[in-house]
Amino acid sequence: MYQTFDHPAAGAPTLDRLRALRARLSAARVDAFLIPRADEHQGEYVAPSAERLKWLTGFSGSAGFAAVTARKAALFVDGRYTVQARAQVDGASFEVLEVPAAKLSDWLGGALTSGGRVGFDPWLHTAAAIEQLAEALAKKQIKPKPLARNPLDQVWGRDRPPAPLGAVVPQSIEFAGRTAADKISALQKQLKADGQDAAILTLPDSIAWLFNIRGSDVAHNPVPLAFAIVPDKGRPTLFIAPGKVGANVRPHIEAVARLAGPAAFATELKKLREQERRVRLDPATAAFALKRALGPKSFRAGDDPCLLPKAIKNSAELAGARAAHLRDGVAVTRYLAWLELTAAGGKLDEITAVTKLEELRRATGSLKEISFDTISGSGPNGAIVHYRVTTASNRHLRDGELFLVDSGAQYADGTTDITRTIAIGRPSAEMRRHFTLVLKGHIAVASARFPKGTRGAEIDAMARRALWAAGLDFDHGTGHGVGSYLSVHEGPQRIAKTGMVALEPGMIVSNEPGYYKEGQYGIRIENLLVVSEPSVPAGGERAMLGFETLTLAPFDRALIAAETLTAEEREWLDGYHARVRAALHGDLDRDTRAWLARATAPLER
Amino acid sequence: MYQTFDHPAAGAPTLDRLRALRARLSAARVDAFLIPRADEHQGEYVAPSAERLKWLTGFSGSAGFAAVTARKAALFVDGRYTVQARAQVDGASFEVLEVPAAKLSDWLGGALTSGGRVGFDPWLHTAAAIEQLAEALAKKQIKPKPLARNPLDQVWGRDRPPAPLGAVVPQSIEFAGRTAADKISALQKQLKADGQDAAILTLPDSIAWLFNIRGSDVAHNPVPLAFAIVPDKGRPTLFIAPGKVGANVRPHIEAVARLAGPAAFATELKKLREQERRVRLDPATAAFALKRALGPKSFRAGDDPCLLPKAIKNSAELAGARAAHLRDGVAVTRYLAWLELTAAGGKLDEITAVTKLEELRRATGSLKEISFDTISGSGPNGAIVHYRVTTASNRHLRDGELFLVDSGAQYADGTTDITRTIAIGRPSAEMRRHFTLVLKGHIAVASARFPKGTRGAEIDAMARRALWAAGLDFDHGTGHGVGSYLSVHEGPQRIAKTGMVALEPGMIVSNEPGYYKEGQYGIRIENLLVVSEPSVPAGGERAMLGFETLTLAPFDRALIAAETLTAEEREWLDGYHARVRAALHGDLDRDTRAWLARATAPLER
Repeated sequence: MYQTFDHPAAGAPTLDRLRALRARLSAARVDAFLIPRADEHQGEYVAPSAERLKWLTGFSGSAGFAAVTARKAALFVDGRYTVQARAQVDGASFEVLEVPAAKLSDWLGGALTSGGRVGFDPWLHTAAAIEQLAEALAKKQIKPKPLARNPLDQVWGRDRPPAPLGAVVPQSIEFAGRTAADKISALQKQLKADGQDAAILTLPDSIAWLFNIRGSDVAHNPVPLAFAIVPDKGRPTLFIAPGKVGANVRPHIEAVARLAGPAAFATELKKLREQERRVRLDPATAAFALKRALGPKSFRAGDDPCLLPKAIKNSAELAGARAAHLRDGVAVTRYLAWLELTAAGGKLDEITAVTKLEELRRATGSLKEISFDTISGSGPNGAIVHYRVTTASNRHLRDGELFLVDSGAQYADGTTDITRTIAIGRPSAEMRRHFTLVLKGHIAVASARFPKGTRGAEIDAMARRALWAAGLDFDHGTGHGVGSYLSVHEGPQRIAKTGMVALEPGMIVSNEPGYYKEGQYGIRIENLLVVSEPSVPAGGERAMLGFETLTLAPFDRALIAAETLTAEEREWLDGYHARVRAALHGDLDRDTRAWLARATAPLER
Repeated sequence: MYQTFDHPAAGAPTLDRLRALRARLSAARVDAFLIPRADEHQGEYVAPSAERLKWLTGFSGSAGFAAVTARKAALFVDGRYTVQARAQVDGASFEVLEVPAAKLSDWLGGALTSGGRVGFDPWLHTAAAIEQLAEALAKKQIKPKPLARNPLDQVWGRDRPPAPLGAVVPQSIEFAGRTAADKISALQKQLKADGQDAAILTLPDSIAWLFNIRGSDVAHNPVPLAFAIVPDKGRPTLFIAPGKVGANVRPHIEAVARLAGPAAFATELKKLREQERRVRLDPATAAFALKRALGPKSFRAGDDPCLLPKAIKNSAELAGARAAHLRDGVAVTRYLAWLELTAAGGKLDEITAVTKLEELRRATGSLKEISFDTISGSGPNGAIVHYRVTTASNRHLRDGELFLVDSGAQYADGTTDITRTIAIGRPSAEMRRHFTLVLKGHIAVASARFPKGTRGAEIDAMARRALWAAGLDFDHGTGHGVGSYLSVHEGPQRIAKTGMVALEPGMIVSNEPGYYKEGQYGIRIENLLVVSEPSVPAGGERAMLGFETLTLAPFDRALIAAETLTAEEREWLDGYHARVRAALHGDLDRDTRAWLARATAPLER
């Protein structure tokens, strides 16, 4: 939930580990070695056995990579992690560089001479990433070189934690809404239509979705680390450590698939290659090693075929999402009421606030896990977009500050993700002005209508128009896809400049515009939406898509400069608040109910 | 300006021509032949000598293509041309098909057997188009085959008009704002930076821009048909028929370039290939023949290097654009005043209206040419997006109808393009409602602020939001780039779903949302805008880009349902009208001035 990060103590092992790794570079006949954060499945969270980057550098953030040569070493992180990286990493050993300004290929070009070889573990990088790197390095006559054994793992040796063996459980049809057999058969139809003999699945959430199972190998994402091969006819094979598959789930899987151990995967790949089967593999997400294993005759580039059907929720998944959001809305509303009572006078700190929120979610009786590390940022901490409170950064919520809390839950029927920004005491006029600009963006998205075929990139600007007009903006996307008791970050759709996939009915996306005033406060307003098909208004000629807001919790009315809202915006807000009140009312204790009635009262004119 | 189209008379030559063309297919060892509308330069307008499609099929529209096999023949046009095509084309000879529903590759796949060869003139298709076609046909084992001689030209023979010899003139530095020497030197710097030894230019407007010349080979676009090779150092060569280059312009060109006849082009290409020069060519716009002539060792794919600098107007070009729009605004405003006086009572027809508008533009004393065929659509004709009035379609403007007029002018200092929709008599409530929805979109674009890097695709949705909310939309882009006394349609920027190029200060784009009610009326509101850098508003933190509206002419207030505009929208509209009045006032006669004062009065509340 929250996590402290260690500052490097005297005698930190970094230098020893770095030396030992360097000693192995020449034996591997490479001049550099790459250490990504990713594991073989490219998920957002990795198991302790895959925390190579942290082990080597001390950096515990969720994104970044390092490169090591005989004399130099660098850690590359993005802007949200530079402060943390500089605090955690031994600056004498690792230079900390910020992407995208700093580029790996430039750094390698400077560190190596022409003819240099850059070693990498072919299971930890995607085929696309290695191709890009190879292209960028070609000018300098430097080449990436896949290594059969990972030299870092060799150094890590026995100290390396074992691979996780999280238990797999069935995802019931009540929540999945569609049998695994049906999903597999649809996938096979697609393979036939695309002229492919099989698909390899490498994304744990694709596998979890296809086989209607959930796992517990990594934090926050209820997925099993596994691979699968789906032939165009017959039974797919799921390659997974037998220790994860108990008697409770084995028949559930074996009804539709063959189970095999991870070691059998290589044998099957070899067979596909020898038989020159046309095998679909997603170069954007699959390991380089897989593309290489298939060889040019068998490799067929294609999107992971589960991505789109997984993103388009069926009616059972949507019913689950609504139930999960109702349950979550009760917990969040109880939290907001508690916060108002508790926060005044500076008695509350960020960690206590996080603990309370998790406690209230747990009190629903249905919480499986929180869906990501809660962001609980008061005052200046709220301006750090991906802030995670630590014992070092923890601070008390003070009057006159804003408090930003971005959190979510995993329930068996759905995944939630909500951000509320709350005024502690009396907010300034500027805070209210900025909050209201963000709110205008949020409402513009929530109330948008758009034709089929519209992509998230076209919606993104709607969230920013009011901020842009004021000379303001925020440096993250407006929304990401969200899974059904799966990953809280899910593709392929997103509401962002990069959102090039058409929004389709049933897709769940977040709507989270923000504004961040460095060193002072952060504002973000996030609800989850599902793409819906509203009825055509009177006089309308064409069916349009729209959004149904799933999230149910009030916005802080004290932060709304109602006089700057248009009539339509006011109407949307009052309507949303009335809906929240009506939906949650029956599930709340008397005090919270009274609080909610005040919190959702119509705006004053 | 306007044009009648002929209906096929008895004994139309189509069938004879088709027979003669078919007779040549087997000699050319092909099973089919493609006839595009395009010439060697892929411009919007072609010279009579390149009107192959019209000669063969009778179809005179500005976009389309035909395919002919031994037994079948089809004309492919888009939705705006199906009616015209069916009227002009002999249905017994040619099947008329609508793209994009109908696909050339599908049709060829059905008409030919495996192993079939599709002949094409390699000068008339882009490299990219042929590659796409080849890919689509590959599944069916059919291949495109470039023909050394165009069999249609062989049949056309002596009847084919000669290639145009339009005189070239210098574009004065006063309007160009930048010397050709300077442009060439900047282009050469870019070639060096990109590691290329030369660029081939095939787009006439790129060539006109680079050498500061204008031509008169085709209608409406003041460009010379020519090719150019620009080496990374030294003088470029302009390949152009000597008859076009008079003594008035020769020294102007020879100051910066070598002049050569068209025949020398092939020799130079051969040389580049033999010397293995790295030659930049834009596969999206350059003929397949050129890519082939360079061969794989010399060909380097790259955007036409003139596209972006041409699109970003310098201060002289912007001053010219403002002067041109002021002049054009006077003509259009005189026209609108005349229209109000004249149209009532059904005395006016569409052709008379077009004639009057051109007459008023000519009266400025500066008109070089209209910038495209005027769209003058009353009632149901207004709903045809690319309507061009003909003697057959001409109708009288009747009371209670809308009249849509989309027109533009070429002046030496700038190109204009404006659409106004005018109520003849009293408009219906529905017309006003629809007009106001379109106006909301127009204002949303005109008043938008956005950060550097924003692409037209992100702005496009702003033009549609109000229509979408009402279940309405329009089936064309919101805006296209516009040249400086060049093409009225200019890339690379556009405001459309497909607008993937960032808008940069100095780019001129149209802002023309619309709404079309088939069989009843069309609405379009078009001004030209230039991307500007407005000052940061109080409290703003980031510089934003915005738009300055160039076009100066009133909107029809009778069509505005002012009560449905927001305060900001009303403010924008009244401000625009006040600006129009102030700008034009001094250049108008007393009656028009009085009319303009009424037409631009603030909206009633």
